[in-house]
Amino acid sequence: MSGSRKVVELFYDVVSPYSWLAFEVLCRYRNVWNIDLKLKPAFLGAVMHDSGNRPPGMIPNKFLYMTSDLKHVSEYFGVPVRQPSNVFETMFEKGSLKAMRFVTAVAEKEKEGDVKLERVSRELWNRIWSNDQDITLPASFAEAGLKAGLTASEVDELLTLATSQPIKDKLKSVTSEAIKYKCFGFPTIVCHVDGKPEIFFGSDRFEVMAHIIGEKWMGPNPVKPMAKM
Amino acid sequence: MSGSRKVVELFYDVVSPYSWLAFEVLCRYRNVWNIDLKLKPAFLGAVMHDSGNRPPGMIPNKFLYMTSDLKHVSEYFGVPVRQPSNVFETMFEKGSLKAMRFVTAVAEKEKEGDVKLERVSRELWNRIWSNDQDITLPASFAEAGLKAGLTASEVDELLTLATSQPIKDKLKSVTSEAIKYKCFGFPTIVCHVDGKPEIFFGSDRFEVMAHIIGEKWMGPNPVKPMAKM
Repeated sequence: MSGSRKVVELFYDVVSPYSWLAFEVLCRYRNVWNIDLKLKPAFLGAVMHDSGNRPPGMIPNKFLYMTSDLKHVSEYFGVPVRQPSNVFETMFEKGSLKAMRFVTAVAEKEKEGDVKLERVSRELWNRIWSNDQDITLPASFAEAGLKAGLTASEVDELLTLATSQPIKDKLKSVTSEAIKYKCFGFPTIVCHVDGKPEIFFGSDRFEVMAHIIGEKWMGPNPVKPMAKM
Repeated sequence: MSGSRKVVELFYDVVSPYSWLAFEVLCRYRNVWNIDLKLKPAFLGAVMHDSGNRPPGMIPNKFLYMTSDLKHVSEYFGVPVRQPSNVFETMFEKGSLKAMRFVTAVAEKEKEGDVKLERVSRELWNRIWSNDQDITLPASFAEAGLKAGLTASEVDELLTLATSQPIKDKLKSVTSEAIKYKCFGFPTIVCHVDGKPEIFFGSDRFEVMAHIIGEKWMGPNPVKPMAKM
């Protein structure tokens, strides 16, 4: 590896299936590309509201396409996305505010690295976007946390922390960072290249992104190059 | 090459810059992949109206992103896209109805293959999406046609044909084909795989599309494999 590691920020919300795809791909590439991946859990609802954007599900043909596109892309990427039985209720009525506060609490408690953050986020995606399970109740967060390898006492502490004002403020503040980048949906990926942020929306620009950060796209399942002796 | 050629239909409108990207990539791959590429000039305005979709330019942050994304992607794809000076006026007020009737007339007159259709489409994209030139006036179509290698008498005939009822009807009919595929924007790419249409929207699914039609994505500039002896 040569040169300084480029910072790549991934703004995501577990309510967004395309965020899951981007999350898995970037987690795979974090040890392949010379990047410093920063996971940035944020609240999609606020971004949509702020930008005036409408979810793709509001246009019937876009919704139909999303269903087929998610099937294509998740198979190709090797991420087990399966649409929940009631997408509208799941995404727009129930939403993800409490879930993202829980994720924010995990991020806040984790002093070094983001192993727990990565695992808990994945478990929540598994619940909503693979197993058609709830992500609004404390018991759901507890189950996701335990599956992610946290202890029962860690989970208890996180459930309390997740409802605290500092965590609510932290989620707002990370969401505001995304909004400052003029984002209009998630995933939003911000690559810092030569002091300039380059913004990529969605999970379909990895090849172009790689080119811009001076790396090579090797498809959704990269192989780490042999270390130079 | 083995097996039967898969039919790939590209529904496009020269008002759409992402359609240009898809058009150039598919024209490059038509001799590399075992496909039968069908160019389908259609009218984006009717598709947007029918689907209730709104152009990305209507959401300010999406418009900002489009500007930066088009720069990234067109550089990477090697297509000289440059935003016209007044995008809104160009895309939404002036529009492309007459231009697409002219393109339809070219398609209709061309008995074998689609060399002229390909060239004229490219010249119109060059006008609107590279050189900031008009695509609403007969003189503009004439110039594009001449640049594409048509003779003056061919151009004259096409200008007359483009205003005829059969050509208006033909454009409507191709647009209706796209609408039947539940499309909500262009480019819409329909791959016929084992008797089933697989739909891809946009110019960012080539890698997944290749996988589904049993071909290999080699980036925006493919190299034709050596013929087997």
